[in-house]
Amino acid sequence: MSKFGPEYVRAIAPYQAGKPIAEVAREFGLDEASIVKLASNENPFGVPESSKAAMAQAAADLGRYPDANGFELKAALAARYDVPADWITLGNGSNDILEIAAHAFVQKGESVVFAQYSFAVYALATQGVGGRAIVVPAVNYGHDLQGMAAAIEADTRLVYVANPNNPTGTFIGAQEIEAFLKQVPANVVVVLDEAYNEYLAAEHQFESADWVRKYPNLIVSRTFSKAYGLAGLRVGFAIAQPEVTDLMNRIRQPFNVNSLAQAAAIAALNDKEFLKKGAENNAAGYRQMTAAFEELGLEYVPSFGNFVLVRVGDDDGAGARVNLALLKQGVIVRPVGAYGLPQWLRISIGLPQENATFIEALKKALS
Amino acid sequence: MSKFGPEYVRAIAPYQAGKPIAEVAREFGLDEASIVKLASNENPFGVPESSKAAMAQAAADLGRYPDANGFELKAALAARYDVPADWITLGNGSNDILEIAAHAFVQKGESVVFAQYSFAVYALATQGVGGRAIVVPAVNYGHDLQGMAAAIEADTRLVYVANPNNPTGTFIGAQEIEAFLKQVPANVVVVLDEAYNEYLAAEHQFESADWVRKYPNLIVSRTFSKAYGLAGLRVGFAIAQPEVTDLMNRIRQPFNVNSLAQAAAIAALNDKEFLKKGAENNAAGYRQMTAAFEELGLEYVPSFGNFVLVRVGDDDGAGARVNLALLKQGVIVRPVGAYGLPQWLRISIGLPQENATFIEALKKALS
Repeated sequence: MSKFGPEYVRAIAPYQAGKPIAEVAREFGLDEASIVKLASNENPFGVPESSKAAMAQAAADLGRYPDANGFELKAALAARYDVPADWITLGNGSNDILEIAAHAFVQKGESVVFAQYSFAVYALATQGVGGRAIVVPAVNYGHDLQGMAAAIEADTRLVYVANPNNPTGTFIGAQEIEAFLKQVPANVVVVLDEAYNEYLAAEHQFESADWVRKYPNLIVSRTFSKAYGLAGLRVGFAIAQPEVTDLMNRIRQPFNVNSLAQAAAIAALNDKEFLKKGAENNAAGYRQMTAAFEELGLEYVPSFGNFVLVRVGDDDGAGARVNLALLKQGVIVRPVGAYGLPQWLRISIGLPQENATFIEALKKALS
Repeated sequence: MSKFGPEYVRAIAPYQAGKPIAEVAREFGLDEASIVKLASNENPFGVPESSKAAMAQAAADLGRYPDANGFELKAALAARYDVPADWITLGNGSNDILEIAAHAFVQKGESVVFAQYSFAVYALATQGVGGRAIVVPAVNYGHDLQGMAAAIEADTRLVYVANPNNPTGTFIGAQEIEAFLKQVPANVVVVLDEAYNEYLAAEHQFESADWVRKYPNLIVSRTFSKAYGLAGLRVGFAIAQPEVTDLMNRIRQPFNVNSLAQAAAIAALNDKEFLKKGAENNAAGYRQMTAAFEELGLEYVPSFGNFVLVRVGDDDGAGARVNLALLKQGVIVRPVGAYGLPQWLRISIGLPQENATFIEALKKALS
């Protein structure tokens, strides 16, 4: 056993990212250009043109440190969500927000509540501070908010709620969320992780910043990595009342969000055309994927995100086996065995042709 | 008192970054183009052309997540420093490396040793994990390594050593460093923070990766924010043996270094022309600055970095007063009152004309 570091750090199993295209090309002797990656819930349209233009302008100044206070990006977010700028915390992706919350609010031995089959970083962030995870069993692959409220203990400091949830794609309606927020004790911080919010249909959209006004213990977390297409640049943010925001900013690294990411995010934020095009592509791709799953007789979890969880076999080797068969054909998806879902794969929704390539490869892999 | 978060988080005073040019322009009603910023030890030449070209190539793929393992950047660093790739940890700037080290090796109540007048992030990172800071008094504004070795207690888990040190610019020779490393107990991790290494004259340069081969408890931390001109992109790295590197990577956020930063760093790494130009400009600027300080009868600390610490008055209001007088003239430097140096200012070395503008403004501020 290592003589370095606390036991809880030594116990962490690092996050398994989606395999990069270059790595799969190296491993399987494939041409990079032939590979389809539907593994990391990325935006198939890439970076919006509006962001590219903003980055070109910001590029002159990259020898300077980023604005540690993110003045212009916070101003844009404040205007968009109708909150004061000092309600905003910037993150190096929303991953950073999730980690900052654990560091800011939880110390060793205190507990954190989250759902089975929810985002892997909740467990990692909890372990990273020596917290005790209280994992509440999922219901129909989604959050059991009643169960989560009931699971809060005297030493619970933080609850993570993902909506929509990754990797299962499940969604919780506004009324149920608010009923939950009412039940959570006022000294327990709730992180409402809405990384996939922008993919929701209009009837499911709601301004969660409105809840932040009511609940001083609520943090709403958002990202520019999904619908806004800026995954490679790393920018996310949190909205919370000043007391909680102030504490998060004591933990936040001052230059956590780089200059290009700040500029690109400002441009993307109100690029409604780009969001609309992405949402339409996503809805069509979802129909394309699920039609194929139905044709193949494969169970899937109805998804509200830009990905679908699909059951590719009845045995616990199925996910890994089909994943390997897909990789050999140059299609990268996400195995979710580490989530306790070894019979399933998570497929990001791509462009129509990418989806079609995946579906063909899946048919071969299953036969 | 807040009901949220551990007491040690509530006690943190956030890092005070150098004021961005845009902020000073807003506050003092100045034209941005007229402002000279010598506040953040940035590279006055900005980003190398080699990095710009590499970024343009990488820009196509920014909708994808960065490579979480940094395969290509680690390969380039491994070749440059003649170590295996699994000895390298990538950071979102070396600030991230300093924080990761605290999270990976220190838990609440355990102690961390660092020097008086050393980089502010050592104290912040220690506080962020609820660690106990053992601050060893400086000698001639530099590290007292004998005193630091003697200050290590049974619960000490981490020592930060800055060489050259920021904000004082002091330097410790190789023999003294190695004598110190021999004295540190094998279970105490040493972070040797060499953010300013590339500015050292040839006779002071040494391959600290050689020490890493000898000392399994040593982390050498480097950055691309200074001599390499990539401050706005955020990339730094650590070299350490696999046991320590593995633990750091359990704490590291998987996508902490963005795609453009990875591409730019690979290009900058072996851009010897750019480093040479920067070092020559720095040496000339140092002579320019210190000649002016001598002419003005101002005490300064001989510096081995790209900045100089200068004493601008005998009273504890001097630093803040002269800083304000400089700001009004559109010159941004760094007050260091928060470091316990209220009579001093830290001046980054810029281009000859920037240095001259500062010197003229300083003369006015002092008269």
